[in-house]
Amino acid sequence: MEVIYPGSFDPITNGHLDIIDRCAKKFDKVIVSILNNTSKKTLFTVEERKELLEKCLEKYDNVEVDTFSGLLIDYAKEKNVTTMVRGLRAVSDFEYEMQMALVNRKLYDEIETLFMVSSGDYAYLSSSIVREISLFDGDVSCLVPEVVEKALKEKIKGGRKNQ
Amino acid sequence: MEVIYPGSFDPITNGHLDIIDRCAKKFDKVIVSILNNTSKKTLFTVEERKELLEKCLEKYDNVEVDTFSGLLIDYAKEKNVTTMVRGLRAVSDFEYEMQMALVNRKLYDEIETLFMVSSGDYAYLSSSIVREISLFDGDVSCLVPEVVEKALKEKIKGGRKNQ
Amino acid sequence: MEVIYPGSFDPITNGHLDIIDRCAKKFDKVIVSILNNTSKKTLFTVEERKELLEKCLEKYDNVEVDTFSGLLIDYAKEKNVTTMVRGLRAVSDFEYEMQMALVNRKLYDEIETLFMVSSGDYAYLSSSIVREISLFDGDVSCLVPEVVEKALKEKIKGGRKNQ
Amino acid sequence: MEVIYPGSFDPITNGHLDIIDRCAKKFDKVIVSILNNTSKKTLFTVEERKELLEKCLEKYDNVEVDTFSGLLIDYAKEKNVTTMVRGLRAVSDFEYEMQMALVNRKLYDEIETLFMVSSGDYAYLSSSIVREISLFDGDVSCLVPEVVEKALKEKIKGGRKNQ
Amino acid sequence: MEVIYPGSFDPITNGHLDIIDRCAKKFDKVIVSILNNTSKKTLFTVEERKELLEKCLEKYDNVEVDTFSGLLIDYAKEKNVTTMVRGLRAVSDFEYEMQMALVNRKLYDEIETLFMVSSGDYAYLSSSIVREISLFDGDVSCLVPEVVEKALKEKIKGGRKNQ
Amino acid sequence: MEVIYPGSFDPITNGHLDIIDRCAKKFDKVIVSILNNTSKKTLFTVEERKELLEKCLEKYDNVEVDTFSGLLIDYAKEKNVTTMVRGLRAVSDFEYEMQMALVNRKLYDEIETLFMVSSGDYAYLSSSIVREISLFDGDVSCLVPEVVEKALKEKIKGGRKNQ
Repeated sequence: MEVIYPGSFDPITNGHLDIIDRCAKKFDKVIVSILNNTSKKTLFTVEERKELLEKCLEKYDNVEVDTFSGLLIDYAKEKNVTTMVRGLRAVSDFEYEMQMALVNRKLYDEIETLFMVSSGDYAYLSSSIVREISLFDGDVSCLVPEVVEKALKEKIKGGRKNQ
Repeated sequence: MEVIYPGSFDPITNGHLDIIDRCAKKFDKVIVSILNNTSKKTLFTVEERKELLEKCLEKYDNVEVDTFSGLLIDYAKEKNVTTMVRGLRAVSDFEYEMQMALVNRKLYDEIETLFMVSSGDYAYLSSSIVREISLFDGDVSCLVPEVVEKALKEKIKGGRKNQ
Repeated sequence: MEVIYPGSFDPITNGHLDIIDRCAKKFDKVIVSILNNTSKKTLFTVEERKELLEKCLEKYDNVEVDTFSGLLIDYAKEKNVTTMVRGLRAVSDFEYEMQMALVNRKLYDEIETLFMVSSGDYAYLSSSIVREISLFDGDVSCLVPEVVEKALKEKIKGGRKNQ
Repeated sequence: MEVIYPGSFDPITNGHLDIIDRCAKKFDKVIVSILNNTSKKTLFTVEERKELLEKCLEKYDNVEVDTFSGLLIDYAKEKNVTTMVRGLRAVSDFEYEMQMALVNRKLYDEIETLFMVSSGDYAYLSSSIVREISLFDGDVSCLVPEVVEKALKEKIKGGRKNQ
Repeated sequence: MEVIYPGSFDPITNGHLDIIDRCAKKFDKVIVSILNNTSKKTLFTVEERKELLEKCLEKYDNVEVDTFSGLLIDYAKEKNVTTMVRGLRAVSDFEYEMQMALVNRKLYDEIETLFMVSSGDYAYLSSSIVREISLFDGDVSCLVPEVVEKALKEKIKGGRKNQ
Repeated sequence: MEVIYPGSFDPITNGHLDIIDRCAKKFDKVIVSILNNTSKKTLFTVEERKELLEKCLEKYDNVEVDTFSGLLIDYAKEKNVTTMVRGLRAVSDFEYEMQMALVNRKLYDEIETLFMVSSGDYAYLSSSIVREISLFDGDVSCLVPEVVEKALKEKIKGGRKNQ
């Protein structure tokens, strides 16, 4: 069974890695698909995010990193995969995710979304909190992989030089 | 009994139509009131939204389409109507709506908000999801009336030409 | 427009009275209907609850107290009323009430449930909390009408004598 | 990939059937496992529930009906299956399910729970609501399969004779 | 500042210990108060629960174990302490706790409830889950202190002999 | 015991004042700390917000008004205070606040967040609702102190002149 794990990954956190690790053990193949939403400003470009994901996931034989733009269901059709995976942390996650799963199913009957619960340890963790802490030079070493921590420092230092 | 059903309707969805249809059967008169919030960017202008609503609602004798700006309670006083109707889908809706109902009552004691539950079929449906799917040329024919589907296509084609 | 306000009212609280008062101002007639659920143990008998409600509501010309057993939709058909009113306090209320509204609509298409928000002052108030405080001789004078306060004291004194 | 879909199924509803149907399409094998909890009173015995499930599911080649008692993780170990499937309807479901998924993972590291969203049509549906409606002779034909509807009628008629 | 940490503690879990440990560091004195609710069946008697708590908390100089029955506010008045502490795990907790805090404040103006968030690790943990797992001979060594684990085994073995 | 009550206070509302009043009674010292977030547009400048808070809080001997930028934990370390206080109104508040409390604890082990429940009267109240009502010349006299009401009128009149 092949699954797509879609997201923004701006940047990837230890919470995402936890879900991907569980998926890699359960499913034959996992496509981690970065949404390239041109109308939404991101800290890292889609190429940078892809590079970071590939570095973090190189130890898995059955995990592939990809990017997509447009509707998830169109991408899923193109990839010929009908199972999506999403992580759940909190109630606010849950309602949005449920809404997206139902609307995707309405648009494309065969599509199915499987939800996995993040480890309790990562219940508080999101990419936006990581970006916010980094912006104020806070220590994110227990929230993201080392390679992401470095990339955050350089990105923010670079941003300050350009001001 | 006369009621106001306020909203942005950018654009009207089958979920809104479901609530209006239920209201038209229960109440003597239903004023569907489009909020003209100049500080918020919308896909359709208030005139376009009014025209779409009128086309979708022309079969009802007791439904009127109107627009308003400013505070809902000031509009309600002007119209001499003290009963508002709002649809409820999810928990996140519920908290915001409850807050608005309580603050409106605090500002104008006579005002009352009646909540109606959307059909389970439309639990996932919102104007913003419709706009997002349309933007990526997705099929919204099961989410909005035909006249809205056409208007969305033209609007998005027009937007692309202007880029 | 005629509405049914169904509930257990074991006993009626100031929160229930707040909803009934709002309904009496909005609707032509309000039938306050006490559920006589023989499989659930109550503190007050259905007759006692009816008497308490009638005493608390005697000042309203358009409010009637009634009892019913069985399914609410069967009772509604018998009364020839298709509009139910329910108060909403919290998220947990909301999900149960939404479920009941949807299942009632599935069983009887014409039925509609209108939800009203309790005043912020009564957001914490429920019959079960009133019963619990009374049981430990706590002061419930700000939570229920005077006639209910008296009835609670007698009921609990009586219960102790019978032990 | 083999999965366990555990539950009480007292009785099976159209909502359960919807989840099982989706599972049968996605997974190689689905074990529908009825919890035999001797400390909780049920309407149908575990044998009756098994018979009803088998009748409803006979058309699926890759669906098996089984029963278990004790902890789910012990049963999962015995069956040599590490993936559980659960349906999600509402926020109250979600918190309990999330808690169970986390505690099961704490007790047995390899176990994983996959959540699937029920169709919007069945968002209100639960076995306890079906039992309650049946008890008052309400029509449950749109909520459960025909064979369950018959079994409910006989069970409740039988219950009345024995009183 | 002196605080009361009330609860049933049937039995005490690592989640409770986490909250007590945080309180002991912040407040001058912590009274851990076991509710002796005679109308609710518990696994451990109030004396057994007190003994277990005392064993688990003997290392703290500023933590005292006590029992109470009746209303919490009456107990608080008697102890001359006006600050209560409660742990929060999930949304369902939150609504009930908020209701109790508001009703207690209504009954006794000076009382204040301070909420503390349990560590993410214990977000799933409750006394009832511990009891359930123990009942089926599951391993609770990572959920409760060692002394409680032993007491659970004896209690359940004892319960079986008496059947 | 000394506590920090951090927030944007754009502007301070009666809900904030209710929490500060409760804190002033319980704790030895309360530092009300205004977040100076330069990347977020506010209606009042940080100096204006400080002046308004000082006017509203001058009657308290143990309440101090301060401003901070950057991470709350860095500010807390600098002030040598390890206890934060936050008000809770609704479920949506709760999840965000819980997330922040857990992430702050992860970054700085000694920090503790104590949550207090707003009075039911202010359950609907937020700075953003106050700003919105003021913008449309609504009456906010029952939502904010008099000095804030005046400041809002001048600010909004000034804003219009500058257009």
